[in-house]
Amino acid sequence: MIGLGLIGGSLLRASVASGRTTWGAAVSEVDADAASRAGYDVTTDVEAALHRAATAEALIVLAVPLPAVENLLRLVAQHAPHCVLTDVVSVKGPMLDAVRRRAPYTRYVGGHPMAGTAESGWLAGNASLFEGAAWVVGVEEDTDLLAWAEVTRLVLDVGAFAVPLPADSHDETVARISHLPHLFAAILATIGAQGGPLAMSLAAGSYRDGTRVAGSSPELVRAMTEGNRDALLPIVDEALGRLGAARGSLASTGGLAATIKAGHDGALAYSTAHDAARSGVRITLSAPDARDALIGLGERGGRITALDDGVAGGEVT
Amino acid sequence: MIGLGLIGGSLLRASVASGRTTWGAAVSEVDADAASRAGYDVTTDVEAALHRAATAEALIVLAVPLPAVENLLRLVAQHAPHCVLTDVVSVKGPMLDAVRRRAPYTRYVGGHPMAGTAESGWLAGNASLFEGAAWVVGVEEDTDLLAWAEVTRLVLDVGAFAVPLPADSHDETVARISHLPHLFAAILATIGAQGGPLAMSLAAGSYRDGTRVAGSSPELVRAMTEGNRDALLPIVDEALGRLGAARGSLASTGGLAATIKAGHDGALAYSTAHDAARSGVRITLSAPDARDALIGLGERGGRITALDDGVAGGEVT
Repeated sequence: MIGLGLIGGSLLRASVASGRTTWGAAVSEVDADAASRAGYDVTTDVEAALHRAATAEALIVLAVPLPAVENLLRLVAQHAPHCVLTDVVSVKGPMLDAVRRRAPYTRYVGGHPMAGTAESGWLAGNASLFEGAAWVVGVEEDTDLLAWAEVTRLVLDVGAFAVPLPADSHDETVARISHLPHLFAAILATIGAQGGPLAMSLAAGSYRDGTRVAGSSPELVRAMTEGNRDALLPIVDEALGRLGAARGSLASTGGLAATIKAGHDGALAYSTAHDAARSGVRITLSAPDARDALIGLGERGGRITALDDGVAGGEVT
Repeated sequence: MIGLGLIGGSLLRASVASGRTTWGAAVSEVDADAASRAGYDVTTDVEAALHRAATAEALIVLAVPLPAVENLLRLVAQHAPHCVLTDVVSVKGPMLDAVRRRAPYTRYVGGHPMAGTAESGWLAGNASLFEGAAWVVGVEEDTDLLAWAEVTRLVLDVGAFAVPLPADSHDETVARISHLPHLFAAILATIGAQGGPLAMSLAAGSYRDGTRVAGSSPELVRAMTEGNRDALLPIVDEALGRLGAARGSLASTGGLAATIKAGHDGALAYSTAHDAARSGVRITLSAPDARDALIGLGERGGRITALDDGVAGGEVT
């Protein structure tokens, strides 16, 4: 585990708790010290941790923000070029490009756990952060499915389920359901604060919920939104179009029925998605169409919940 | 209590629990039946309830959405024209206009509790909904401060604190901290649902929080946003401007630092507002400048927490 912030630190705890032999490294001495005091096997010597991974043929997890990835990939290529490598970075296209450029010999499978809080750092983490969470595990045309299974095994071991997806599907979807929400929260928090102490004294549930993630580390939010620029721009344009249409309707007819009805339908779609009937699926990873079957399952909103003898078991609505 | 939905139903419960003699009326037979079965003194005969209020010189609370107000005010003017009257409608300027037009003889003091959930109806309510909540109690140039004290007494009795404000300050502020958040939630929920089952399967904390109030009753959200059109339009324009600026910056330099930094500062202002040191204030309601003192306190983010012998005790940062 390279990086021991909220996600890396939680994953180290959860991995150890599941019985896996796991060691960590962090450039942040604060996080490394805290993890070490909590009894975990960690170091600030990233190169030593990678060398150890190469010797043990371990799975390497990069748990750092995108801007820190390039330097780490150079070290991985140097010290552990043949290990299976994954990451938890919230954009997958730019991550895939970086790996192809900097560490082309690793067996890389991108990852992204859909879990987090507005907090950051080792102390904010906990071993149950990933329980029941969706975790995207990348599938591209050239993905090594043995490496994919190794990453998926970790995902299942820490209590999450795996969503197999190519990088472009992932990036377009997180722009919708994570990066736009972060931008909206920032704008709401700005406009609320412009109302001064009176606005802060009247702010209640809708404001608290709508602005919660505006409290996240600005560096992390910049890394994920700016890193996903190409997928985020058309989604921001969609938001501008919808907000502009609402503005026009409110100014002309005074009505917001279309905007509010569409939002209510959307909220209903979200709440019913979790209750939808699901049917079981089994995908044999050695089959010639296994990659297509995995991607098809992920793109229909399905998930992998078990892995046995080279067969991925999942469910889809 | 006229209206026994989420707010009216919770207020009936809380008022009775505080020891006040309280009766209710609802046009909705579903809500009236449920309240009656729970042991409360309620009827579907609104005129009878108002006549009883006139006889008892009771405080009347209109707990209905803005579109239902005009008809009720006609009944109030007819059956209880001299009672103290308040309401819980989320816009105060249009409410004040309606009272001046339809029931000019009542001693009206506008009210708005900053509490609610995405649910609605009697069954969604509870007696502790208002505990610790801000509750705007209107103060205009011609407000009868004895009536104001009577409404504030109810607010304090149910566990809330009172924020004295004129209608225009209220409406501008709720546009910022409640109505824009509702529009943003609707747009986020629409754009998320456009991503289909895949988007719903990956949606996590930022999406859940950012879209929560999109599940609110569309009729109630329309009533409050459309009813506050004049105050909401410039706030929507501010949001369009800020989102457009973020879009331009992301497309040109690729940077979102200004947007994200401003949002983080706003989130900090909100979280520290609750921890700020407060000093005590006492306002004698019979003093000639009492209205100005109350409004000044409300507009600085202050609140009234006690009322004794014609003196309002409060605190301000």
